[in-house]
Amino acid sequence: MTTTTSAGRAAVAPAAPTRAAAVTLRPVPLGAARIAGGFWAERQEANRRQAIRTGYEKLETAGNLQNFRIAAGLAEGDVRGPIFMDSDVYKWIEAAAWEYAREPDEEVLGWIRAVTDVVAAAQAPDGYLDSVQQVRGRGARYTDLPWSHEHYCAGHLFQAAVATVRGTGETGLLDVAVKLADHLVATFGEGRTVDVDGHPVVEMGLVELYRETGTQAYLDLARWFVDARGHGIIEGHGKQPTYFSDRVPVREQTTVEGHSVRAVYLTAGAADVAAETGDAELLAALTTQWEGMLATKTYVTGGIGARWDMEQFGDHYELSPDRAYAETCAAIGSVQWTWRMLLATGEARYADLVERTLYNAFLPGVSLAGAEYFYVNALQLRDGAHPDEERSVANGRRPWFDCACCPPNIMRTLSSLDAYLATSSETGVQLHQFATGTVSADLPGGRAGFSVTTDYPWDGTVRVEVTEPGTGDWELAVRVPAWAEGATATVEGSPVTTTPGEYLRVTRRWSVGDVVELVLPLQVRVVEADPRVDAVRGAVAVERGPLVYCVEQPDLPADLSADDVRVRVAELRGAQAEHRPELLGGVTVLHVPVRRAAEAASGPLYRPAGDDAPPASTGDAVAVDAVPYYAWANRDLGAMRVWLPRA
Amino acid sequence: MTTTTSAGRAAVAPAAPTRAAAVTLRPVPLGAARIAGGFWAERQEANRRQAIRTGYEKLETAGNLQNFRIAAGLAEGDVRGPIFMDSDVYKWIEAAAWEYAREPDEEVLGWIRAVTDVVAAAQAPDGYLDSVQQVRGRGARYTDLPWSHEHYCAGHLFQAAVATVRGTGETGLLDVAVKLADHLVATFGEGRTVDVDGHPVVEMGLVELYRETGTQAYLDLARWFVDARGHGIIEGHGKQPTYFSDRVPVREQTTVEGHSVRAVYLTAGAADVAAETGDAELLAALTTQWEGMLATKTYVTGGIGARWDMEQFGDHYELSPDRAYAETCAAIGSVQWTWRMLLATGEARYADLVERTLYNAFLPGVSLAGAEYFYVNALQLRDGAHPDEERSVANGRRPWFDCACCPPNIMRTLSSLDAYLATSSETGVQLHQFATGTVSADLPGGRAGFSVTTDYPWDGTVRVEVTEPGTGDWELAVRVPAWAEGATATVEGSPVTTTPGEYLRVTRRWSVGDVVELVLPLQVRVVEADPRVDAVRGAVAVERGPLVYCVEQPDLPADLSADDVRVRVAELRGAQAEHRPELLGGVTVLHVPVRRAAEAASGPLYRPAGDDAPPASTGDAVAVDAVPYYAWANRDLGAMRVWLPRA
Repeated sequence: MTTTTSAGRAAVAPAAPTRAAAVTLRPVPLGAARIAGGFWAERQEANRRQAIRTGYEKLETAGNLQNFRIAAGLAEGDVRGPIFMDSDVYKWIEAAAWEYAREPDEEVLGWIRAVTDVVAAAQAPDGYLDSVQQVRGRGARYTDLPWSHEHYCAGHLFQAAVATVRGTGETGLLDVAVKLADHLVATFGEGRTVDVDGHPVVEMGLVELYRETGTQAYLDLARWFVDARGHGIIEGHGKQPTYFSDRVPVREQTTVEGHSVRAVYLTAGAADVAAETGDAELLAALTTQWEGMLATKTYVTGGIGARWDMEQFGDHYELSPDRAYAETCAAIGSVQWTWRMLLATGEARYADLVERTLYNAFLPGVSLAGAEYFYVNALQLRDGAHPDEERSVANGRRPWFDCACCPPNIMRTLSSLDAYLATSSETGVQLHQFATGTVSADLPGGRAGFSVTTDYPWDGTVRVEVTEPGTGDWELAVRVPAWAEGATATVEGSPVTTTPGEYLRVTRRWSVGDVVELVLPLQVRVVEADPRVDAVRGAVAVERGPLVYCVEQPDLPADLSADDVRVRVAELRGAQAEHRPELLGGVTVLHVPVRRAAEAASGPLYRPAGDDAPPASTGDAVAVDAVPYYAWANRDLGAMRVWLPRA
Repeated sequence: MTTTTSAGRAAVAPAAPTRAAAVTLRPVPLGAARIAGGFWAERQEANRRQAIRTGYEKLETAGNLQNFRIAAGLAEGDVRGPIFMDSDVYKWIEAAAWEYAREPDEEVLGWIRAVTDVVAAAQAPDGYLDSVQQVRGRGARYTDLPWSHEHYCAGHLFQAAVATVRGTGETGLLDVAVKLADHLVATFGEGRTVDVDGHPVVEMGLVELYRETGTQAYLDLARWFVDARGHGIIEGHGKQPTYFSDRVPVREQTTVEGHSVRAVYLTAGAADVAAETGDAELLAALTTQWEGMLATKTYVTGGIGARWDMEQFGDHYELSPDRAYAETCAAIGSVQWTWRMLLATGEARYADLVERTLYNAFLPGVSLAGAEYFYVNALQLRDGAHPDEERSVANGRRPWFDCACCPPNIMRTLSSLDAYLATSSETGVQLHQFATGTVSADLPGGRAGFSVTTDYPWDGTVRVEVTEPGTGDWELAVRVPAWAEGATATVEGSPVTTTPGEYLRVTRRWSVGDVVELVLPLQVRVVEADPRVDAVRGAVAVERGPLVYCVEQPDLPADLSADDVRVRVAELRGAQAEHRPELLGGVTVLHVPVRRAAEAASGPLYRPAGDDAPPASTGDAVAVDAVPYYAWANRDLGAMRVWLPRA
């Protein structure tokens, strides 16, 4: 079990605090939660078969691996790509290692070994490692940390090393990581070099490495990095301090702002530090920030980071659907942070946001085929939009990017997704996310385990059957999502009370074969935004279960553009669901009655307003299929809308 | 008169074609149209007293002038600032020269001479000139034209040189310009170096220099630069070709796209080329682009360039008010292009857009005090917006910018504004913009002239009194703005028919003292946008005369945020106007009945939608003052809205 740091080898990817008083829930050990079938298993299979394999090729063709060879003196030439090229390699290793743990593949293990060898060869004798900086920088180290991403690459290395040890048992990359971490400890901190990386992530990596090795200095340095921000260290580097999450100390910050990925990687690392050190003040500051994010800066999809400009959070309520940036990496960072808040508190609202974000902000980032990616996740695409920016959704998903942070980030998230299913505590086991599979945990009274059977998210029935009874009473907690009004549940056939937004908690002496069944009603839900979200005034979005839906051009008649779709809420609410196994890998579509926008094509851009709002639609409703937003842009690319203007 | 190129010395800033068949209207000579009082005269006085004077100091403190000294070998050190620093100096000279022509100021003339001397000293013997490139580039020339702005700086030099000759009679800068232009002619073109600058403006500058000197090679090179774009010359320079206006040849382009200032500077230069060469095909292509811009990519203010990201035009109908970039320089470029379309065609719609843009997209760029500037012109600012980006309106207007293109661009536009008032043709004189002042033009039958008296834009009466009768019949044409429903006019007291959106045309033998009076009704107008402009769905804007209004926090009760203002169109339409001479330099405010948003502060960000749209407001209407948008942010900075959601 993973209650001590020295046993960290058995912990899981979205690493959790293991000792501190602030910790409420603990991850189950690697392999103890397992997705065995259904929705996410299919996504993981595509990740395994397509993304991880082609990703390895991409790292070769894009130059990432060659950069290490050049730094190692094994090859000649100039390094290629952006300054953080090493991190893509580390994220790929992490993905491959978690995937190896799920199902061994000796060819992939061979690749991991080969990559580890070339990474190790590039490392300087004193532990320093950053292939791009070693070659381009000609010996200069940490001279421009706000931009150089040297710590950022290190953080991803640390996480990859821990994953490799846990997932494959191989320790080569851990040796590299420890050497580099020791070098960082010797170099940075009070009385040494006082500086921080412009892009957080090293904080999470150091805490993971601390959990794996037990080396207190790594945790101390992570905490120092968290507390060093917001004191003017990063100044005069061409961007405002906000961009670097350096305007305000983390403990005093009350909002999420600046570059969204940087911001949430920092808060995720700070949550790790808070948990490991029992720092209630820090956790309280993070709670305030998280609540503000959810209340004012989160898309209905769970996506975050509204602005293309500098990939930043917008002001509160600045949530434009057409220019939504909502970077896939930001969604991943939000999941990592929110997961850590769940571990620290045990509150269902965190698991709710993880679910929303995984289905609707993370998953749209990858194609159903498995190896094409969205960097940006707009909630609207207009007819005739110009695909001029590489990252624009008007280009469709791409096989790779010049700045390729998202693809391997998606890979590692999918291959470690099992870890988000469940946690354990001193008193029981908690089921947070629903997927067919198995969960087990070592409780004080012995091993408890259960299987989960569900066709979620298409069907709302989740059947939990005890497979390992433990001894004595323990609590089985099953999340009832906040959206699940009317949810019902039975324990061994007897009804029990459920409350949406809380956990169904059943404490008893369990026997093998005991069944808890949760039934989540999957009626169509129609939502609107707070009126301060000006960009979607007069529009509604459609949800069913955990999924946000969209109207996409391939499902519309040729003479009706998604630009011109109008809807009536009462008609939407009656939309019939139909599962179509042949469509988009199998999706439940909603037959949504839509109307045609009135006056869409007439008149000048600005025209006299009548006393009453003009008619928004014309003609009778026709039923068209709405599809889950995550599945859009997997057919002919065309106009798409999540927010549907009211008729 | 300015009907031949050799007489170009008498032409005016927004230079016009002078020979080609395509030309319909001609600018009047410098000084022949004169703003003598009223609204714009006050803005020009602030420009003269504050902007041009402090601008000179800024050029010293920011390093622009020192850069020339360093390049000339008159000083030591490194050049400072962005690569196009020289252009700010040239735009300032242009502004000072036009202003000198309006009213001589020997101190400013001394500055012009001193700056001219240092510019001339920096010029290489063969004519090459670019202070930043000369020092930083260590002899390299034109090696990275997509980014180096060497032609861009040259274009602004050419315009400044022509302004200096025309405005002050001094020829020193013209000598520098001709040497550089000859160097460009010797270096670029078919059979020589085939390359174009990533930032157009040299095209306009070369045509102006051609008009001033009669040197055909300058016009030929301008035409070559226009036609060279869109053929893949600019590739592999880190941005898509669209950004550089290089995706499609100008003649084949059907939309405005990419970096908005680059795009409209190019079309303005292309319009010059079309006019000077009688190129109807090119003019037709520009007409298509202009119509598309007006129909789908223009803010209600006339502002253009929706995206912060790369300062680009958005897709059609992508016109978010809160993230409007609407750069002040883009508004100026739009005016320059649109003015040239007016000259080429004589169509009132072009003068209408010039008016809208000058009052509502250009003028907001400068403070009432005269020397603080907006780079970006958002149409909404929320309570508590973070001022993290230098250019954000949340910072208020700034004294200068790291990239200081806008301030001197505003200066030169204000000091040459008289030129936009009127034009002449073979048959008469056309009054396009309304300001108290004088206009004269040499018609075939002799000099015709008139005075204009008006309190526009506060009052809609425009009185034109003939001061120089000419001989024989000539046509006086006075624009009736398209918004001026119900406009009336009299000629010597007798009513004549007017049609909004066309010119009132009166042809007769005029006598001194003849009066034409136009009365434009200034009732409040409430407008809404095409329903495809999703970002302002359910909202309306208020206009009166040429002005767009806004609701700004300083005019609201303390307990009502501009974020939460809701309006009813019928109530708006009855809003009373009141001129308040003490407020904001003297503005007519509108007593606008507003209501408070319902539910503004309650509930989660996304909530169940009812069958009917929720109540948008609560309580009774209260009258608050709306102020002209150009005047906002001249008091305590707070929330502001142009688009007002319907109650």
